[in-house]
Amino acid sequence: MPIYLRGLLLTSEQGQKSISSRNLANFVGVNPCQIRKDFSYFGDFGTRGVGYNVGKLAKEIKRILKLDVIQKMALVGVGNLGSAILAYPDFGIYGFDIAAAFDANPKKVGRKIKNITVEHVSKLRTLKKRKIKLAVMAVPRQAAQETADALVRAGVKGILNFSPCHIAVPKKVKVITIDIAMDLARLPYYMPAS
Amino acid sequence: MPIYLRGLLLTSEQGQKSISSRNLANFVGVNPCQIRKDFSYFGDFGTRGVGYNVGKLAKEIKRILKLDVIQKMALVGVGNLGSAILAYPDFGIYGFDIAAAFDANPKKVGRKIKNITVEHVSKLRTLKKRKIKLAVMAVPRQAAQETADALVRAGVKGILNFSPCHIAVPKKVKVITIDIAMDLARLPYYMPAS
Repeated sequence: MPIYLRGLLLTSEQGQKSISSRNLANFVGVNPCQIRKDFSYFGDFGTRGVGYNVGKLAKEIKRILKLDVIQKMALVGVGNLGSAILAYPDFGIYGFDIAAAFDANPKKVGRKIKNITVEHVSKLRTLKKRKIKLAVMAVPRQAAQETADALVRAGVKGILNFSPCHIAVPKKVKVITIDIAMDLARLPYYMPAS
Repeated sequence: MPIYLRGLLLTSEQGQKSISSRNLANFVGVNPCQIRKDFSYFGDFGTRGVGYNVGKLAKEIKRILKLDVIQKMALVGVGNLGSAILAYPDFGIYGFDIAAAFDANPKKVGRKIKNITVEHVSKLRTLKKRKIKLAVMAVPRQAAQETADALVRAGVKGILNFSPCHIAVPKKVKVITIDIAMDLARLPYYMPAS
């Protein structure tokens, strides 16, 4: 679903109002039959010979994925990766809004990046009051569990974690880990022998 | 397999010589039965009551994943994300070595980051001669397809792509895309209603 949503949002950006399952399939790199099957589960958004209504379908997928309200989120760790995340252009189209940024380094606290003033990690506990339930962690591995614990105590329910390690959290909290080296480690296996 | 490898490498870093399936399971966040099943496919690396030999098992998984030789790779795009990738500490343990970095911005060309001198993207064609078959792309979306085309022409067989878009490449080339916003977009669905 998120893959389709990305395809639809990019299509919409390009000014297209409708798209065929074949074109959407090419765009996102899946099979057109799979698309028709997946979309049939939640009603009929397509017209034969015209295609799917891009706006309506994107809105419906957003609703299903609970992306139909703006989601405020916090960033912890404003190093190179954190800065890249702050500058990332595509969060907005999914309804995400980075509303706060934190770092453990006192030298970084107070710095202003993209209209956001970096706060010290000791202020993470203010997230509850600020109703921020989503966080992106771009901290060194050694600080990962401790940071996650602080986020959980502050009422955060979803964490996107860039530290290459397993993080223990209560069942009511969802963690998605992006481990860049591990994704890279999958490549050589698929590469043809030279 | 890459998840187990990460668990074993971290265990090894901590000086442990053997690990039980239960401890490895806790460490990587999967079921111990699954681990025993997966490992049984390629012979017996465990001793009842002692556990798996960490070094031997890591070596075997590296061999299976074709990570048993040093893989030279190129980085294209030395912005915030590219710089974070250059500084990433964990590539080495998987056998990856960033051997070259490229950027389209003339101001960045010649700059030295972590012993690597940034070259202009027009030099991508030298990758063939330098026997670099793996590349990480951290370029803006608009430049993604063009960059991938240049990499393919230069003989690159595996691409880790951070641009949030589908990239068309010949079948003999493997692309893995990391789309940060899309991974984030999966979170709200799993978060409990508040």
